Order: sequence, then C-alpha cells, then structure tokens
Amino acid sequence: MNTLAGKFIVLDGPDGCGKSTQVKRLVQWIQQQGVDVVTYRDPGDTRIGELIREILLSPEHDIMSTRTELLLYMASRAQLWAEKIQPALDQGQCVVLDRWISSTCAYQGYAGGDGIGRVLDLAESCLDRIWPDATIVLDVDLKTASARMDRELDRMEQKGDSYHQRVREGFLRLAEHQPHISVVDATQSVEDVHQGVLASLKAILV
Amino acid sequence: MNTLAGKFIVLDGPDGCGKSTQVKRLVQWIQQQGVDVVTYRDPGDTRIGELIREILLSPEHDIMSTRTELLLYMASRAQLWAEKIQPALDQGQCVVLDRWISSTCAYQGYAGGDGIGRVLDLAESCLDRIWPDATIVLDVDLKTASARMDRELDRMEQKGDSYHQRVREGFLRLAEHQPHISVVDATQSVEDVHQGVLASLKAILV
Repeated sequence: MNTLAGKFIVLDGPDGCGKSTQVKRLVQWIQQQGVDVVTYRDPGDTRIGELIREILLSPEHDIMSTRTELLLYMASRAQLWAEKIQPALDQGQCVVLDRWISSTCAYQGYAGGDGIGRVLDLAESCLDRIWPDATIVLDVDLKTASARMDRELDRMEQKGDSYHQRVREGFLRLAEHQPHISVVDATQSVEDVHQGVLASLKAILV
Repeated sequence: MNTLAGKFIVLDGPDGCGKSTQVKRLVQWIQQQGVDVVTYRDPGDTRIGELIREILLSPEHDIMSTRTELLLYMASRAQLWAEKIQPALDQGQCVVLDRWISSTCAYQGYAGGDGIGRVLDLAESCLDRIWPDATIVLDVDLKTASARMDRELDRMEQKGDSYHQRVREGFLRLAEHQPHISVVDATQSVEDVHQGVLASLKAILV
C-alpha cells in the first residue's frame, strides 16, 4: 500500500480498548511496508499540548465544565496539527494518531451530553482538518476494558461505568454516520485485533 | 441605577490602557451605589483558568498557533462562566470583568489574523453568553500605552508594535459594529477616564 505515504490514520476507542498496543503494532507494520511513519497521542505530544493534557487529566479538576473540557481538547489538537501533523503530512510521512476528534465526539459530545453535532460544529470552526483518511474504532465492552486498566485512573477514566457505557455507544453511533470510520472488535487477541485493523485500513484506503 | 444588579459589565482595551485601575474604580463606585458586585479577570480567576492563563502568557510558548491561543482563551472563559459569572448573575450580583470576548476579537481575531467573524462563530458554538450588558473599551495610543507598561512583559505583551497597533484597530472596528460597546479615551487622567466610564455605562444600561 504505497497509498499510506502522506496518509492520516487514527486509532480510537474507549479507555481500555488497547489503542496504545495497536498503535505500536500498526506503526511497526507500516514501517515494514517501507513507509516513513510518525505517531502522536492526542491530547499532548507538543510542549503546550502536554501542559493542556495535565490540566485535562488531573483528578483534582473535578469541577471542570464539559465546555471547558471540549475547548481544551481542541486547543491541544490545534497545536498538534500546526506543529507536528501538518508538517509531517506535507513531507509525505504517514501519521498515526492515538485519539482525535472522534474521541471528543464520543466523550464530550455523546457521553458528556454536549452533543456530537456541537462538537463537529466547533471542530469545523477551529480545526484545519477534522477527518483523517481513516479512523478505526476499537470496540470493547466495559467489563473487558476495566479488566485491562489495573492501574491508577486519570480524571476522565474515573468518570464511572454509566459514563463509559455512553462513551462506547457514542463511538458506535458516530461510526454509523461516518463511512470513513470502521469498527474492530477489540475483545479479541492482540494479533486478531491487529489483523482486523489492517483489514479495515485496506478497506478504507484502497 | 438599580439596573446594575444582575448586570454583566466588561472593561476592555489594549495592554496599557489602564483597565485594572479603572475596574477597581468602577467596582468601588458600584459598591457605593449599594449594589453587590464581584470582579474577575479573564483569562483566569478559576483554578483551571489560572493554569490556562500560565500556558497562554508564558514567554516560552512562542510557537503557539493563533488557533490554539484562541481555544485556550475560550476554555478559560467557559470555566469562568460556569464556575463564577453565571452563579453570581443568578444571585443578582453585578459582575465586572477585566477583558472578555471583545479581547479575543481584537487580539486573535483582528491582530492575529484569524478574523473577528471566526472568533464570534466559535464563541457562538461554545459559550452560553457572548455579549455582556455593557462593554467599555478604553482606547489608548501605542506610545501612551507603552509608557504605562514599565515592567517585564508577558508573551502577549511582547508581540511588538505593529501587532499592538492592530489590536487597537481591532477594538475600534469591533465597537463600530456592536452598538452595546462604547469607547472611552483612556489617554486622559484616571479620574476623567472613570467619569467617561460612568457616562458610557449610564448611556448603555439606562
């Protein structure tokens, strides 16, 4: 797939879906295809973005309004786009992201109650590019996800089961309406999920 | 003016226009009228907002994109609204702000080149209330403003004369198009500016 050069790919999904592991596997696979690839996590991965990430994820900030949360995610994203993603794409690199606008739709828009439509309106008015070439959602049920998160939880992760159930629904709802988003069953083994990601990618990009 | 109870008033203008001094004078005057009044600075004045303010004003962050800047100001503002301004207005307090959306129009919109229209579109989609009951712009020329700022400058203040000239133009342009914004000549003495502020307030609110 030479088409991967200059392509913008996002892996997304609920906390505990195995994104980080799958991003690593995907990046290795893309490298094996001889394509220059870079990977970033959203929010973060710029100096300014990491400071924003700290504010967002600190469990102390329990009175943050959903609107503030939404704007901080967008701010980190705007910086990551300007400073890293756009230059990389311009140089023909493939860019793989751990989360992007789809997360904000599912978390703040759907689960947080701000509305997916509002998130997309806001994204339209503040981001140069909303949709990657491919977005793959790793879908996982709450029980499997929780079992994978045996560590100290950040502010978003602490939001409780009903919130995280809505996050999952938000991702699935979004995928129904956006044809360039595909869903992979992430309760499978790491290798099976990886194969699912590759199959989805080929289907979307070719 | 009993009309001041539950009213939302903003003093705004270029750096060095004397806002902080005039906010204090105005607040004292409102208290003398027997009206309960609170004052906040934007960005900041919530725990989350102060962290955002630090990111915005740190001279280290010279590669911040205008879009990121815009979103961070909005994020701090959304938190200030939810946590402080709205509850105060709901209780019938008068709220006096040092800066608000008019600053973002003048700085990021006009001087930063992002466009006043885009700032207002974004504000529409992310703030519950864009326009205060009264906005008073303290207008000052660059030379007078610089002479008043004999101290270490933050990232925004360091942006140079042509940027700050455009900021001033941005405020005046905005005031031309928004009838609830009035402009006071802030090169006058503190007392004369204060009287100008009161006169504008009466004209807008009564």
